[in-house]
Amino acid sequence: MTGPRRLGERMAVDIAEQPHVWRQVLGDAVEQITAAARRVTERSPRFVLFVARGTSDQAALYAKYLVEIVLQLPAGMVSPSTMTAYGARPDLHDVLMIAVSQSGSSPDLVQSIQLARTHGAFTLAVTNNPSSELAAAAELHVDILAGEERAMPATKSYTAQLLVLHQLVARIAGRDGSAAAALPDLAEQLLRENRVAELADRYRFASRMVTTGRGYSYPTAREAALKLMETSYIGAQAFSGADLLHGPLAMIDRLVPVLAIVSDGAGGAAMRQVLARLADVGADTCVIGPESAAGDAATRIVIPGVPEELSPLLEILPVQQLALHLAVARGVDPDRPRGLQKVTRTL
Amino acid sequence: MTGPRRLGERMAVDIAEQPHVWRQVLGDAVEQITAAARRVTERSPRFVLFVARGTSDQAALYAKYLVEIVLQLPAGMVSPSTMTAYGARPDLHDVLMIAVSQSGSSPDLVQSIQLARTHGAFTLAVTNNPSSELAAAAELHVDILAGEERAMPATKSYTAQLLVLHQLVARIAGRDGSAAAALPDLAEQLLRENRVAELADRYRFASRMVTTGRGYSYPTAREAALKLMETSYIGAQAFSGADLLHGPLAMIDRLVPVLAIVSDGAGGAAMRQVLARLADVGADTCVIGPESAAGDAATRIVIPGVPEELSPLLEILPVQQLALHLAVARGVDPDRPRGLQKVTRTL
Repeated sequence: MTGPRRLGERMAVDIAEQPHVWRQVLGDAVEQITAAARRVTERSPRFVLFVARGTSDQAALYAKYLVEIVLQLPAGMVSPSTMTAYGARPDLHDVLMIAVSQSGSSPDLVQSIQLARTHGAFTLAVTNNPSSELAAAAELHVDILAGEERAMPATKSYTAQLLVLHQLVARIAGRDGSAAAALPDLAEQLLRENRVAELADRYRFASRMVTTGRGYSYPTAREAALKLMETSYIGAQAFSGADLLHGPLAMIDRLVPVLAIVSDGAGGAAMRQVLARLADVGADTCVIGPESAAGDAATRIVIPGVPEELSPLLEILPVQQLALHLAVARGVDPDRPRGLQKVTRTL
Repeated sequence: MTGPRRLGERMAVDIAEQPHVWRQVLGDAVEQITAAARRVTERSPRFVLFVARGTSDQAALYAKYLVEIVLQLPAGMVSPSTMTAYGARPDLHDVLMIAVSQSGSSPDLVQSIQLARTHGAFTLAVTNNPSSELAAAAELHVDILAGEERAMPATKSYTAQLLVLHQLVARIAGRDGSAAAALPDLAEQLLRENRVAELADRYRFASRMVTTGRGYSYPTAREAALKLMETSYIGAQAFSGADLLHGPLAMIDRLVPVLAIVSDGAGGAAMRQVLARLADVGADTCVIGPESAAGDAATRIVIPGVPEELSPLLEILPVQQLALHLAVARGVDPDRPRGLQKVTRTL
């Protein structure tokens, strides 16, 4: 690029590209997703394990909900250190292990998949790099087709992961995945409206925030907190709505703004109890969700209504914009957060 | 009680009682733990799922590491909402589901165990109340024998859960669990030394903190953050050392103190990379761990060296004391955190 860069200009481009990336996933990726789903179905796993780090870990958590609810299979998240640092060699027959990683390079994930494969698991990698070590290590690979991410914080690669994982699970469940067809247009409209500028101004001087959601929207709450931490250096903490009531609620007062992700389904309904308790303690709560769920919250970001299992794709978009605006307002460059590397090599 | 209460006097008594409670677990609870271990062994589960909330969720996470490493079985944490809110009815044959709860009363846990049992899981409840609904719902129950907790934040019930779960897994693995015999005396000595007063003074004006650990010590980092949130209302955030490097490191600067739990084994060794990166960004890091692991950290709390899988029992003790001291220094009563209920009934 020529000339001085504006703060966050790369992240802005990544965010804006998401509808385009989703169209690619729903078009060009269908064949590989369908093939992977067929292979998984043939193996009929009894248990699904996920292994991931950072933003990809929230995508994996989203997929864990899909596996538990749509496929009705028990599932878990692997703590990679048990295999890489402690030498555990569990019997993984009948287990499908799915690694989710943008770069496909972190040694702990590569080693986890290699060990799992040796010990009986059927292995699948979901990455943004088909020539990565992780893609090579797993029996199956699905490319999320997000293209190069310009900024360091993951935005388009996150939602591409969500969409690929949704389409994969839908096909394993014998559905055609067409429920997602409307998403790119809805995302375009939502991104264009860009409803967060005022909100960014409001949170500009906050040093802490809390994000919360339940069910499918809990991964959104976690990714929202991570995005705010990475870009604006805000001490953002995510809690499942239920866990929030088991302790952390104590630290919430009028000085800790809350972002509550409230979808239109069972997860959103389970948040009513949480919203009521937040109101009791005088919390400043912004509700992110469809018109029907956001209700009469004083502060809210309305997103288009879609089936609940797809809502995480739309919910995160205004939060990405908020993180970008906030970082710029605070004078830091979200394209290059201090202290981070795009490819994080943890052992 | 007569006369005005001192802030935190109940929590102080709970904390001090831990060596006594542990002696009871290692004595009076042996029979029920051995019987439960025998029943589990007979069923030879292939997967283990945990369901828990709040502090008990960290105890469950500790047990997940034990199951993965010592029993070499794949394991996961259930998101209760998948069964209670979304109606998932997974096939749970060959699955051992363990519910961990202090009160045994939260409806979402009771319902999860009931549903799991109906759908083929072998179910075990670990609670502090043998007449609770949860104890009745599960096929097996182990009482942690912690006695009534006087303060609202869980302290003695947490370490009693850890010890019961350790002893249970040891016996399922065919060990006698005697490695834990030295713990009560070591805890007594550590609690008497009470090395945290100075540290509490140092953190008195902090509004945020970060806690971190890997492997067996990661649950300690999470429980440390929860205790600081509940008692002192500090915005404390816990990260596995590996996840910290995948994003959240960006928000750490000289104004965000870090508590790093560094054990004497593989988890502690994996923290070296994390400590180096924290030093790079100028973080103020206090290392909690045995002499050999704490090394030459400027600020540290030395705890007695024990086998790594038992270290979480000792690591949390000075943090409980720190949370208590900090709350009192800040003029809030840790016995009764604002906005909380001892028994949290989430659906």
